[in-house]
Amino acid sequence: MSSNSFGKLFTVTTFGESHGPAIGCVVDGCPPGLALASEEFKPDLVRRSTGRSRYSSQRHEADEVEILSGVYEGHTTGTPIALLIRNTNQRSRDYERIAQTFRPGHADYTYWQKYGIRDPCGGGRASARETTMRVAAGVIAKKWLAERHGVRVRGYLAQLGDITPDGFDWDAVEANPFFWPHAAQVPALEARINQLRKAGDSVGARVDVVADGVPPGWGEPVYGKLDGELAAALMSINAVKGVEIGDGFAVVAQQGSQHRDEMLVDGFASNHAGGILGGISSGQELRASIALKPTSSILIPGHSVDLAGAPAEVVTKGRHDPCVGIRATPIAEAMVALVLIDQALRHRAQCGDVGAVNPRIPSGPVA
Amino acid sequence: MSSNSFGKLFTVTTFGESHGPAIGCVVDGCPPGLALASEEFKPDLVRRSTGRSRYSSQRHEADEVEILSGVYEGHTTGTPIALLIRNTNQRSRDYERIAQTFRPGHADYTYWQKYGIRDPCGGGRASARETTMRVAAGVIAKKWLAERHGVRVRGYLAQLGDITPDGFDWDAVEANPFFWPHAAQVPALEARINQLRKAGDSVGARVDVVADGVPPGWGEPVYGKLDGELAAALMSINAVKGVEIGDGFAVVAQQGSQHRDEMLVDGFASNHAGGILGGISSGQELRASIALKPTSSILIPGHSVDLAGAPAEVVTKGRHDPCVGIRATPIAEAMVALVLIDQALRHRAQCGDVGAVNPRIPSGPVA
Amino acid sequence: MSSNSFGKLFTVTTFGESHGPAIGCVVDGCPPGLALASEEFKPDLVRRSTGRSRYSSQRHEADEVEILSGVYEGHTTGTPIALLIRNTNQRSRDYERIAQTFRPGHADYTYWQKYGIRDPCGGGRASARETTMRVAAGVIAKKWLAERHGVRVRGYLAQLGDITPDGFDWDAVEANPFFWPHAAQVPALEARINQLRKAGDSVGARVDVVADGVPPGWGEPVYGKLDGELAAALMSINAVKGVEIGDGFAVVAQQGSQHRDEMLVDGFASNHAGGILGGISSGQELRASIALKPTSSILIPGHSVDLAGAPAEVVTKGRHDPCVGIRATPIAEAMVALVLIDQALRHRAQCGDVGAVNPRIPSGPVA
Amino acid sequence: MSSNSFGKLFTVTTFGESHGPAIGCVVDGCPPGLALASEEFKPDLVRRSTGRSRYSSQRHEADEVEILSGVYEGHTTGTPIALLIRNTNQRSRDYERIAQTFRPGHADYTYWQKYGIRDPCGGGRASARETTMRVAAGVIAKKWLAERHGVRVRGYLAQLGDITPDGFDWDAVEANPFFWPHAAQVPALEARINQLRKAGDSVGARVDVVADGVPPGWGEPVYGKLDGELAAALMSINAVKGVEIGDGFAVVAQQGSQHRDEMLVDGFASNHAGGILGGISSGQELRASIALKPTSSILIPGHSVDLAGAPAEVVTKGRHDPCVGIRATPIAEAMVALVLIDQALRHRAQCGDVGAVNPRIPSGPVA
Repeated sequence: MSSNSFGKLFTVTTFGESHGPAIGCVVDGCPPGLALASEEFKPDLVRRSTGRSRYSSQRHEADEVEILSGVYEGHTTGTPIALLIRNTNQRSRDYERIAQTFRPGHADYTYWQKYGIRDPCGGGRASARETTMRVAAGVIAKKWLAERHGVRVRGYLAQLGDITPDGFDWDAVEANPFFWPHAAQVPALEARINQLRKAGDSVGARVDVVADGVPPGWGEPVYGKLDGELAAALMSINAVKGVEIGDGFAVVAQQGSQHRDEMLVDGFASNHAGGILGGISSGQELRASIALKPTSSILIPGHSVDLAGAPAEVVTKGRHDPCVGIRATPIAEAMVALVLIDQALRHRAQCGDVGAVNPRIPSGPVA
Repeated sequence: MSSNSFGKLFTVTTFGESHGPAIGCVVDGCPPGLALASEEFKPDLVRRSTGRSRYSSQRHEADEVEILSGVYEGHTTGTPIALLIRNTNQRSRDYERIAQTFRPGHADYTYWQKYGIRDPCGGGRASARETTMRVAAGVIAKKWLAERHGVRVRGYLAQLGDITPDGFDWDAVEANPFFWPHAAQVPALEARINQLRKAGDSVGARVDVVADGVPPGWGEPVYGKLDGELAAALMSINAVKGVEIGDGFAVVAQQGSQHRDEMLVDGFASNHAGGILGGISSGQELRASIALKPTSSILIPGHSVDLAGAPAEVVTKGRHDPCVGIRATPIAEAMVALVLIDQALRHRAQCGDVGAVNPRIPSGPVA
Repeated sequence: MSSNSFGKLFTVTTFGESHGPAIGCVVDGCPPGLALASEEFKPDLVRRSTGRSRYSSQRHEADEVEILSGVYEGHTTGTPIALLIRNTNQRSRDYERIAQTFRPGHADYTYWQKYGIRDPCGGGRASARETTMRVAAGVIAKKWLAERHGVRVRGYLAQLGDITPDGFDWDAVEANPFFWPHAAQVPALEARINQLRKAGDSVGARVDVVADGVPPGWGEPVYGKLDGELAAALMSINAVKGVEIGDGFAVVAQQGSQHRDEMLVDGFASNHAGGILGGISSGQELRASIALKPTSSILIPGHSVDLAGAPAEVVTKGRHDPCVGIRATPIAEAMVALVLIDQALRHRAQCGDVGAVNPRIPSGPVA
Repeated sequence: MSSNSFGKLFTVTTFGESHGPAIGCVVDGCPPGLALASEEFKPDLVRRSTGRSRYSSQRHEADEVEILSGVYEGHTTGTPIALLIRNTNQRSRDYERIAQTFRPGHADYTYWQKYGIRDPCGGGRASARETTMRVAAGVIAKKWLAERHGVRVRGYLAQLGDITPDGFDWDAVEANPFFWPHAAQVPALEARINQLRKAGDSVGARVDVVADGVPPGWGEPVYGKLDGELAAALMSINAVKGVEIGDGFAVVAQQGSQHRDEMLVDGFASNHAGGILGGISSGQELRASIALKPTSSILIPGHSVDLAGAPAEVVTKGRHDPCVGIRATPIAEAMVALVLIDQALRHRAQCGDVGAVNPRIPSGPVA
């Protein structure tokens, strides 16, 4: 299967380079009859957009989604849904400077090694611009999951550099440009970003995604496990270097008596597992986290080599985020939603007759 | 594609339950002409085997691999290679006790919710016994990678509970039953395991895998990225709750000036990225880590429910490891090798003519 | 995806060579809860078996199916079902003779060109023995289709050399070793086969498969069309050189006014289309036909070359059918059933909510 | 895998409805470094175009291909190539008439049964307009095959109704609007089409495709056989009801002594097999044929039903071809080319080291 496609039954194929004429995607396998209009893509694209605040890249794209197919009289038809966004604000001249050198920590060098081609403009296919289409496809997935199963997928910034939340309030998350769950810390985050921008440096981040309403039974052991596919989906996001489910790496120091989520008649006693057991959803809240590296596109000069192998010094001007992790929040949500809809359809395919046979225990306290 | 298959071109399909008559796999897409004999599976199966030492489960399986197809006169033919291992030491009576209840932290409940079937014996398909065939398939992958590309895939235990290595020596790893890289700490590990066994409890672990010799260019952006597929492969191993590439979650607190691996004429200056940039191997050492939860099969009684939804107390007798992470080392190596051979073949397919066009910089210092 | 796997959701992976220790398959994605016992494979395997009558190859295999996994207490669990048949009657010495030459019209030469390996025994993987596992997997598919949807898949021999049926009676088909639909012609078929055997020659055949009870809606345009997948499935059977749906090649000389199946309130007026329109089942009888070439394993000497490229004369002794098409009947049924179950599951995945929304017209007269 | 995608490694995903804003495709997995410009699509699109002559549909589309991605400075980069064609000449009002009824012999009814949606405009996704993108993708495949392997893929009309060629000349094929291989018969074809148009009727056709230069070794037994994939590819073309490889259905009446292609030192003595043995190319000319039904979009009134199940009479006005088979020629070529490039890449992946090990015999006389 094509490596620019994601999902087995609800399949998203993305295309387009950061500085090419357009980016787009084809969503194949969407259930028919879902109401869908182009304006529904706006909110999540704005959330992802670099233009959300001055704390991220200053490239402003209109991100107008054109639906080219698969929707008739406002509803999906079951045929492939093609979405197109024209690039309008690319500034390739920012990249002329670096056409002959490789940016440290970037995909320049590896793309060149793989394909033998050097497309220096905006990172080409490796640019975070590609994630726009993940978010767009995720909008469809989120809508179907909500309407059909009552599933809600939400994310937030859980760490920025060494700053962690001092409190948690879902309502706060969408009320600040950092997707931060504790409003009182927003000034501190602003200060940190400003300081980084001044220093021409960047910082890493951690994003958490939570899905509630996921019924038990989604996930296909052993190579289509729900957690395995979440890991692939999330690790495929630009700059991600780590993925955790539930307690993640904290389990290394836990003991079994502490980690196992005991089952009571009125629900699970805890949720260390993050809602997945044996690769299948348990009915508890699904919890995943990702670690995003600090972008390597910074103003501080760095050592590199050029195409001929000679030493070079590189400064990445362009318009880059001091913390790419901030706007990764809607992207991570989208990838989780894409995994969930695909698994939901696969589960219906194989186990559509199992249905409500077995009694479920309540999801219990949120970890 | 089948969810019990792994890999696009070098495809491994595993089957078999812990307490069924046999486990096995079909390896499809193996390059022809590779020398292969059934005794070659032995070393890694012994490394994985629960019988390696008294510090892991006391179930002893002969693990004799029968090659059923795909090998003629000692060489692979290019047709599917079927491997079969008969189960000889299953003790289903250990499980009769628990047939009517769900073990907390186990896949019992989720399999039952998904499939409507309760197969209590040894965890059925969810048992770690399935990983035997991953290791077997990995032997073929490792051999081809070593012969064709000089790639070496090695793992070690990087943390057990709160114990971390005080030193590092590859030679030590294979000389102790813990795959621990520092010989002097082995008595401390033994003491910890004995103490856990006495307490009827278990503990988590961290395993690191390193692959050297990987050429630049392997990996297919954006949904077949090398790190994305490693994440899926590693997260699909039983008990894994987290995956990291390179510095992993440590990147959250790093700055760009610190993280980016500068490129010098004589090699990369560091390896925070773990050998992958933009989803493509850079030619540096590939580094991945996994977090394994403490097994939930412990002797300390826990709260649960039974099939009818009534409260129950569960004690898991059986023969279980106090730390399943120990023998995950060869399993993790196998999964990394399976990802690498698949990507190597895919790279040859698409970019076979790019070949040695571009000069490479040396892999540089090992992180 | 692996090329020895068939089907997207109900996936069959076969392995094994004609003269290796065993053949087998892994059926992944089977709905859970289906009753299944090893003796259920017998009837179709006997129908396919070379031992059904003296009019086919004299190799007699017991074809005892062992279920290695995926079935617990007599029902499928939803995990992979592995089936194994030991080869017991291989006579490799028949093939020693031909180890250094290529049989005209055989896969010897092309396998050797592709894989660089010469496995002369019984055609290796290219042997019709592989089809045993298609039939076995087809048994599961047929059973589920019948129980869940009332679908029945049946085939018959529609032409042998230049002999065509003078009448049609489904009851006759299973009452003679030729799967011939008109009992009165059986002596003529016997005479033809005997004459061919005496002459050391072989003849081609045509097999028709009919599936009734298929609901409208199965099939996924445009590259997963029902007819496209049937064509792939049927053409993949050994010796098949042509596939037709409905009227097949006869449509070339038809006019639109004649071909289109008019729709009346009480059903379709005809079935030239063979039950498929736009790649989706129409609810009419599904009709497919295949052309099977005369086997090239004959006693009449033929010109060939040897491994060194020198001229050689080849006579294929072994135990071969004068008409391989005869026992292709259950194989073709199996492939049709495998396509149908896969499409049924895929349809449920995407369109499970469309269900009985739309009124259906009756299937109408059988073409 | 998505059902609107074709190919495993060279993957084409098409989208778009006949009367939507645009049609397009994404070609993923193309080898990098291939020169490609948008004007290269023109010749084959014109060959396919309904506007080629007055003997086919009078809908005239500009078919201007915009390359949206995957090409940088005139060469493929290895990233997905998106192609877009805006629809400019759709006339939906032709279809208002039929919005409430089903056209006999059309996909209207089956799409409605499957998806629960009635999109009456121009056949929606089931329209032959979709094949435009097959032809566009095929242009890339043909070019790579020619440059890299010297493969040439050519088709011609081999039968129209009951008219068959009286002679054969490749040069004639492209010199008349029928792709007919014998110039002297062109007036007779014109007369037949005019007569059909006058009668408001249509007729079937047969198209042959020949590929020369295919090296031995392409094709993956047993479910990725070259002939199996050709069958799927060709049967997926609108209106195709039959596929033959080599002698096709004529083999039914052949004997083995006649059919087997004997091998001489200076080449194969014949080519009944059509260049494929055991699912793998033999190095001979590849020969495939398809049967195309007469279009059901005719002016002669036909019986049908409406959405409420009541009887209706249908006349299909629109702008339709009296023989859709004529312009199927470049479509069939494209599908053959897409299968070949995919198999070529897959062969290089698995067997890239087998290479030129084995001596080949010449392809011999063309059948």
